[in-house]
Amino acid sequence: MQPFADRLCDAIRERRSVLMVGIDPRLDLLPPSVVQSAKREAASDDEAAYRAFVEFGRAVIEATAAYAVAVKPQLAYFERYGSAGIRAYEELVVAARRAGLLVVADAKRNDIGPTAEAYAEAFLGASSRMAADAVTVNPYLGRDGVAPFVRIAQREGKGLFVLVKTSNPSSGEFQDLQVGGRPVYEHVAEAVNRWSEPAGEWGYGPVGAVVGATYPEQMRALRKTMPRSIFLVPGFGAQGGSAEDAAIAFDARGVGAVVNSSRQILYAYRDEHQNGIDYRDAIEAAARTARDQLNEAIARAVGA
Amino acid sequence: MQPFADRLCDAIRERRSVLMVGIDPRLDLLPPSVVQSAKREAASDDEAAYRAFVEFGRAVIEATAAYAVAVKPQLAYFERYGSAGIRAYEELVVAARRAGLLVVADAKRNDIGPTAEAYAEAFLGASSRMAADAVTVNPYLGRDGVAPFVRIAQREGKGLFVLVKTSNPSSGEFQDLQVGGRPVYEHVAEAVNRWSEPAGEWGYGPVGAVVGATYPEQMRALRKTMPRSIFLVPGFGAQGGSAEDAAIAFDARGVGAVVNSSRQILYAYRDEHQNGIDYRDAIEAAARTARDQLNEAIARAVGA
Repeated sequence: MQPFADRLCDAIRERRSVLMVGIDPRLDLLPPSVVQSAKREAASDDEAAYRAFVEFGRAVIEATAAYAVAVKPQLAYFERYGSAGIRAYEELVVAARRAGLLVVADAKRNDIGPTAEAYAEAFLGASSRMAADAVTVNPYLGRDGVAPFVRIAQREGKGLFVLVKTSNPSSGEFQDLQVGGRPVYEHVAEAVNRWSEPAGEWGYGPVGAVVGATYPEQMRALRKTMPRSIFLVPGFGAQGGSAEDAAIAFDARGVGAVVNSSRQILYAYRDEHQNGIDYRDAIEAAARTARDQLNEAIARAVGA
Repeated sequence: MQPFADRLCDAIRERRSVLMVGIDPRLDLLPPSVVQSAKREAASDDEAAYRAFVEFGRAVIEATAAYAVAVKPQLAYFERYGSAGIRAYEELVVAARRAGLLVVADAKRNDIGPTAEAYAEAFLGASSRMAADAVTVNPYLGRDGVAPFVRIAQREGKGLFVLVKTSNPSSGEFQDLQVGGRPVYEHVAEAVNRWSEPAGEWGYGPVGAVVGATYPEQMRALRKTMPRSIFLVPGFGAQGGSAEDAAIAFDARGVGAVVNSSRQILYAYRDEHQNGIDYRDAIEAAARTARDQLNEAIARAVGA
């Protein structure tokens, strides 16, 4: 298969969007009509979650497919309901692919060599129902925990995104510790750059980086440290990062990154101004707005 | 419920064992008879893995329950087969509980606040079929990623084990980076000690630490940094750590830690000297040997 980085950059050009829609389904935030009908038809709470997540997730995919290049299901919300939740995840991977969207499994997996290999086969392998186009990976265990993901990504034309500088308030507690005058995350970034041997047309390798839009100055420095890595940018929207902050992640051609928005799109129908509007229409409008804001900010940044 | 740390220390006293059996099922290493009969009865590869893992896992639990205090299913090997694999994991949690064993889910989960909370509910919550007695957690995202696990562990009488110094060869790549004259893992250890407010009879709190037996000198220092944390000790056996190395993790009463062995027990039947012996007998003998080696090393260390 064509390498993941090329598939993503091509999709950004063809679809004129850098938006990734985070699929973070929570029963307490889903439209009441979806939850109620799932509960009526299900024999257990886990089964009700399965039904509600499949219905909601498919609606999200349908409503956003024209405005996004990828979806990012967050495994935590599916695992919350055990094997029934994972079944819902598996069905949504199929639905997203049918809609022409790339799928990034936000799993933040990590382990030592042979065990990391099992995770890599689960999320990137050819024979796994959980397999996506790319997966997020935590680097704390060092290179022998990351290498199996890199090897299987290269074999399958898939990608991984290593956590470098995350978007949350306490990301600095360990990531910003100063080592020889530079933060830990810069050391991780240098390793990511070494691991990401470019392949394909656009000059990017299989090892991307998660860099939060909530830390724009750090992102500017990291873009220089990791010229061969696609950036996955969380923190845009509900977490406070602006489109201008996210635009820093892109190269002069306007590719090389993808920007995630979850809550601001999924739960747009909960906005007080949306009263009475169908939740799918609210999601579609929020995705269109996010796409346009990002495109405009990137055009300004590239033009500048 | 009684706090996890107390339940573990009590079990160590009552069962006269500090052994945790790692359940890492791999189709390529399972007894051929188990795999063949699962494949005959199953309609798909994932379903065959589910059947083989349940049969093998139950046999492991039955063969080792008299010699161990806990089992540690490794989620990666179950996720490798998607929702079918997770169903096998859920059934083995039930089987281990029935056998009187504590269950530590080796999941190394991590995420930002609200998402970390979903993982914590999945692995520690009262309503989740995936819930164990404790879960392993990766600290790279800092305190707001760990806090939801601590809160739910306290609420439910459960525990967590934060990765501090892992057992693999490249664990030093980021964990050993020097920050103000001390390695990153010591900074993580200080945070773990702050987070682990003691509760119950034995003086340990809900936040334990993963510290590899393959780094005995570092373990000695970390035992002093984290006096309130139960240690989960991987790396004993197949990875090269000795019983003497693992014994460093224990307090003067011979409690405060639990030592994992996976491959050396699970796949004992593959040893050339075991030719013709039933795989369950080989597993039982390996578990008894591991328990005895650890008890003797701890008795010597405590007596010294």
